[in-house]
Amino acid sequence: MKPRKLRFGVLGVGRIGKIHIENLVNRIPGAEVAALSDVAAAELEAVATRFGIERTFGDYRGLLDLPEVDAVAICSPTNLHYQMIVDAAARGKQIFCEKPIDLSIEKVQAAIEEVGRRGVQMMVGFNRRFDPNFLKVRETIAGGLVGQPHVLRITSRDPAPPPEPYIRASGGLFLDMTIHDFDMARYLMGSEVTEVYARAAVLVDPVFATAGDWDTAVITLTFENGAYAVIDNSRKAVYGYDQRVEMFGSEGMVTVTNNTPDTHILCDGVGIHTALPLNFFLERYAESYLREMRAFVDAVENRTPVPVGGGDGLKAALMALAARKSALENRPVKLAEIYQGVTPACPVS
Amino acid sequence: MKPRKLRFGVLGVGRIGKIHIENLVNRIPGAEVAALSDVAAAELEAVATRFGIERTFGDYRGLLDLPEVDAVAICSPTNLHYQMIVDAAARGKQIFCEKPIDLSIEKVQAAIEEVGRRGVQMMVGFNRRFDPNFLKVRETIAGGLVGQPHVLRITSRDPAPPPEPYIRASGGLFLDMTIHDFDMARYLMGSEVTEVYARAAVLVDPVFATAGDWDTAVITLTFENGAYAVIDNSRKAVYGYDQRVEMFGSEGMVTVTNNTPDTHILCDGVGIHTALPLNFFLERYAESYLREMRAFVDAVENRTPVPVGGGDGLKAALMALAARKSALENRPVKLAEIYQGVTPACPVS
Amino acid sequence: MKPRKLRFGVLGVGRIGKIHIENLVNRIPGAEVAALSDVAAAELEAVATRFGIERTFGDYRGLLDLPEVDAVAICSPTNLHYQMIVDAAARGKQIFCEKPIDLSIEKVQAAIEEVGRRGVQMMVGFNRRFDPNFLKVRETIAGGLVGQPHVLRITSRDPAPPPEPYIRASGGLFLDMTIHDFDMARYLMGSEVTEVYARAAVLVDPVFATAGDWDTAVITLTFENGAYAVIDNSRKAVYGYDQRVEMFGSEGMVTVTNNTPDTHILCDGVGIHTALPLNFFLERYAESYLREMRAFVDAVENRTPVPVGGGDGLKAALMALAARKSALENRPVKLAEIYQGVTPACPVS
Amino acid sequence: MKPRKLRFGVLGVGRIGKIHIENLVNRIPGAEVAALSDVAAAELEAVATRFGIERTFGDYRGLLDLPEVDAVAICSPTNLHYQMIVDAAARGKQIFCEKPIDLSIEKVQAAIEEVGRRGVQMMVGFNRRFDPNFLKVRETIAGGLVGQPHVLRITSRDPAPPPEPYIRASGGLFLDMTIHDFDMARYLMGSEVTEVYARAAVLVDPVFATAGDWDTAVITLTFENGAYAVIDNSRKAVYGYDQRVEMFGSEGMVTVTNNTPDTHILCDGVGIHTALPLNFFLERYAESYLREMRAFVDAVENRTPVPVGGGDGLKAALMALAARKSALENRPVKLAEIYQGVTPACPVS
Repeated sequence: MKPRKLRFGVLGVGRIGKIHIENLVNRIPGAEVAALSDVAAAELEAVATRFGIERTFGDYRGLLDLPEVDAVAICSPTNLHYQMIVDAAARGKQIFCEKPIDLSIEKVQAAIEEVGRRGVQMMVGFNRRFDPNFLKVRETIAGGLVGQPHVLRITSRDPAPPPEPYIRASGGLFLDMTIHDFDMARYLMGSEVTEVYARAAVLVDPVFATAGDWDTAVITLTFENGAYAVIDNSRKAVYGYDQRVEMFGSEGMVTVTNNTPDTHILCDGVGIHTALPLNFFLERYAESYLREMRAFVDAVENRTPVPVGGGDGLKAALMALAARKSALENRPVKLAEIYQGVTPACPVS
Repeated sequence: MKPRKLRFGVLGVGRIGKIHIENLVNRIPGAEVAALSDVAAAELEAVATRFGIERTFGDYRGLLDLPEVDAVAICSPTNLHYQMIVDAAARGKQIFCEKPIDLSIEKVQAAIEEVGRRGVQMMVGFNRRFDPNFLKVRETIAGGLVGQPHVLRITSRDPAPPPEPYIRASGGLFLDMTIHDFDMARYLMGSEVTEVYARAAVLVDPVFATAGDWDTAVITLTFENGAYAVIDNSRKAVYGYDQRVEMFGSEGMVTVTNNTPDTHILCDGVGIHTALPLNFFLERYAESYLREMRAFVDAVENRTPVPVGGGDGLKAALMALAARKSALENRPVKLAEIYQGVTPACPVS
Repeated sequence: MKPRKLRFGVLGVGRIGKIHIENLVNRIPGAEVAALSDVAAAELEAVATRFGIERTFGDYRGLLDLPEVDAVAICSPTNLHYQMIVDAAARGKQIFCEKPIDLSIEKVQAAIEEVGRRGVQMMVGFNRRFDPNFLKVRETIAGGLVGQPHVLRITSRDPAPPPEPYIRASGGLFLDMTIHDFDMARYLMGSEVTEVYARAAVLVDPVFATAGDWDTAVITLTFENGAYAVIDNSRKAVYGYDQRVEMFGSEGMVTVTNNTPDTHILCDGVGIHTALPLNFFLERYAESYLREMRAFVDAVENRTPVPVGGGDGLKAALMALAARKSALENRPVKLAEIYQGVTPACPVS
Repeated sequence: MKPRKLRFGVLGVGRIGKIHIENLVNRIPGAEVAALSDVAAAELEAVATRFGIERTFGDYRGLLDLPEVDAVAICSPTNLHYQMIVDAAARGKQIFCEKPIDLSIEKVQAAIEEVGRRGVQMMVGFNRRFDPNFLKVRETIAGGLVGQPHVLRITSRDPAPPPEPYIRASGGLFLDMTIHDFDMARYLMGSEVTEVYARAAVLVDPVFATAGDWDTAVITLTFENGAYAVIDNSRKAVYGYDQRVEMFGSEGMVTVTNNTPDTHILCDGVGIHTALPLNFFLERYAESYLREMRAFVDAVENRTPVPVGGGDGLKAALMALAARKSALENRPVKLAEIYQGVTPACPVS
């Protein structure tokens, strides 16, 4: 007998929602999408039609009431995440939630506790862990090929700033953009961060200053294992999406270059020219979005722990808040200053 | 009203058939697969179930009799291509046929004529033209960035030899493997080949000698535009699938490197190490298979000429036969020696 | 009439002295070496014989008394630099001095003043400015090709730690090793540093801890122009001498890779392998040592300012001292904390 | 007691002569230049003055009469090589001779015999064997890392054509330019060539046609070991001097990229840009000229066989003549067609 597929309800059919829907519908044989919800009715219907999904709901609670829905993918704006998590957990749904869980540490913590109480799993969408490049770096480190980690370097630059309304609602550079790098740093280092020092500036566009935000940052992380990481961010790299990491250790170094649309090399009378990086996250991380959702489906089906849990979301958010405080006060800030509570167990893999 | 999708029947559900089925089902919104045929009943049912296709036929003629089938993808062994083409054309189906059309020039020519007489289109599966790397090379040349072409170099090496039965049925190195490179040479050069000189040897595995075949070759092509190409082939590159081209011209040179599963670079006490190429054509040309089928669907829907026609299949086959004759006689062979007929119009793009 | 060559006396015939002697003797037609001094008599004679230099002195003051000596190259241990500079200036000799000028800011300042009073020039041996890679980066930035500088990244790792006596006399990681990177940062940024934040640790070898030193550091620099730099250092990279810089700006990014002894690429069944970087500074910076000495000779002959002056040496030393203070106190340190005096004019080129 | 240096007389002070003089004077401690000869008096004096060489001769026989001269470097036009070799051998001088020895196989053979009869050594200036890149390729092959050689690819393109008088005196593309690649093919393959097939055309500049020469060629070589090589040449690559080789074998592949003046990478809004190759042979092969002369000096001093002998010069010339014949007649030509004599023993290293 053919095994029953895992049935998803997707909450939010915007840019990131569509990615997950397409992957669930077309690329993950063990899953299917049973229902969608969104407050934007026209877009909701368009997406439902495109992917042949019958059930749609303007109010996500209707979707959650469907008994045939096993799991939800929460792809709504950040400020809705918390309530959706709580409601989904109350109905026993397995939860995949986009990052960040919430801009407030208290709500993140509460969401984690609620999920734990209800006995469901919650995976957080740090998709980059599933990117083939970074995965290979992680495996190389975990395999001992660079020895003891000493210095991690992460460069993460967007091709262009987001629109102003996005900036204002984003929670700021550290919670919106660097949070991926904070998670990556923990993931690659295999150790927890104890202290953050951040320098930030507005060098790209004054709109960031008027929004009380920054567009450029360099951050130093200190880890429990004695190693350091340096992260540098920019909201605008004219040459495209720049996503590199490099781990240096006692026995070697592993790094990755950017991905490109092709491998051509043109030599002319002026120089040697190659392709720019893939422009932005939809192209660059297409594979990682697919792999993370597969990992969630596998974990739910096999009743194994999800590879990226609520505790990971909490840790990254703490680092972001520490970085903001550090940048504002120009001094190193310990994570313990931000949060004294007991963080849930989420051993770095 | 939603436009009607182009309905495909796929003839043959082996390795290459499955690729086309998956692309048609999951990745090409304007197409669907209405029916499958194959003589291997168990595999046929397995594939039909996996992709949710209802109609299956042990005899492809049953499939061809379905009036709702608009187009066929012929993915059967080469020796069946000719009859399937003739039968499909007789029923007015649009035809996508895997390469080579046939091992006999006469049958290739007859198939082309039959298709023309029936007023249907036939596209030949030279998928590499749709690979992002080679497409970029073609665009670079067509855009004049390397000036007048002078010398083209193509390296094409498989990771491992096929099994002996495959070798014996393959038509030999030039018709089975180099045929892709012959088409690529015409495609990139934008000029027709007039003469072929081929040297071939058995250096990889004596099984090729017992099959009357070779595993290693170097080929020189002379073009109408006065330029040359050199192709080198091997049935076994231990480091994986090696697929490179390089065009040198009066104003520059354009080349491509192989594609890899990731971009990692590991530096240790011994050296600097990077990933091997993607291992074989299923991974390496995944994107080109998708793009070629999209191009076929688009051409049929828009009633425009298919981008790779029967004439292209004929030209590549002529080159392969000339190469075989050249290798056997160790002398340059003009294409006119192989075929004096009027080749159908297929201007090199 | 053939122009008279610039006559050098070289003070110190150790590792770095020999480099300068060989370049002056064999590669710089406008210069010659008239005399050598060193306290190690046997080595002094061996070097004099090897290069055919007739005059040698155990006491450098004898050398300075030679009226035919136009210029000196001070290649002695750091603690002797100051007195040699003062004595050479008093005799009107043009001065090339290896870095650092001295471990004490006061003596550096005094040496600069003395040189100025005597009307001679003093060039400091920040040879890396003359390396073809870094020079190209500087030209690219100066030519506006990366726009306004935003973030500079410097990675500087030695292949292996120096012997313990060297460590103890070195002045520590920041004054001995990072000082090159501090100068490079000013040189590439074209702006002065206002603040330094440094994190340092002993991760490579406990001998550094017993010497009151560190072997690993990450440093954040803040510049007057609002940009940042991050430097990371290690005393031991098992894969060899790692010397890279990367400038990111509003219009682009420029970076360099390491130099290798050859460009070979080996593909085998395991991976793709290339050569390790040139192992250490004698090989890596052979060209820059030659070019810096040529630049000194040219400046003296043409009576133009030397390209790297005493003020540059002072600035780099101030950054090193600020970094040490920062690492010890774990807080950002402004350069003004270290030195309130008027630094001599040395506009960043 | 200091060992006596090997005393050279250099015959011909043109472009290549100056390279050898500078290396002998400045970079090879075991050698010195005792005398120069050239028919161009003014240039002769200029070079003698520049390098401090006292003895000069308008007629090289005067130089050869100097008893203190141990060895000669023959750097004159090709048509003078033969007589100079014979005369130098008659006086017992050790001989370094630039390539080609002569354009006539008979004279090459006669020169080799004369040298043998006189008991002196003759090294031929195939300097590329001493290039670090190609040397590494050779070592990789010799070390078995690519297994049994199957296919060798050599690309050799000049940045710009030589002036017309040079072309007319050069002996043609194969004897002037490809001869280096022919020697490289033998050197890397470690096996002798049995047959040559060459295609050649005038695609760069009609001046080559008026001189009875070609500017573009592709050549297939067949080796005794069953392997093949393909060489492609052009007299004009707008992007600079293109010098690459690639050996493919049963266990892997080794290749090299071109050398560049720096390793910078510029990313801007248009693409990623790197430096063009070093422009021409003086820069590109500076190191190989030095190393080959050191090897000659070492061989003479140690009374060991020179690493590149007269037989190597003969073999390369035979290949060039076979290539010319092949290109003219458009058919493969066996080396045995060109020369039936017993070639002197010169086992491929």
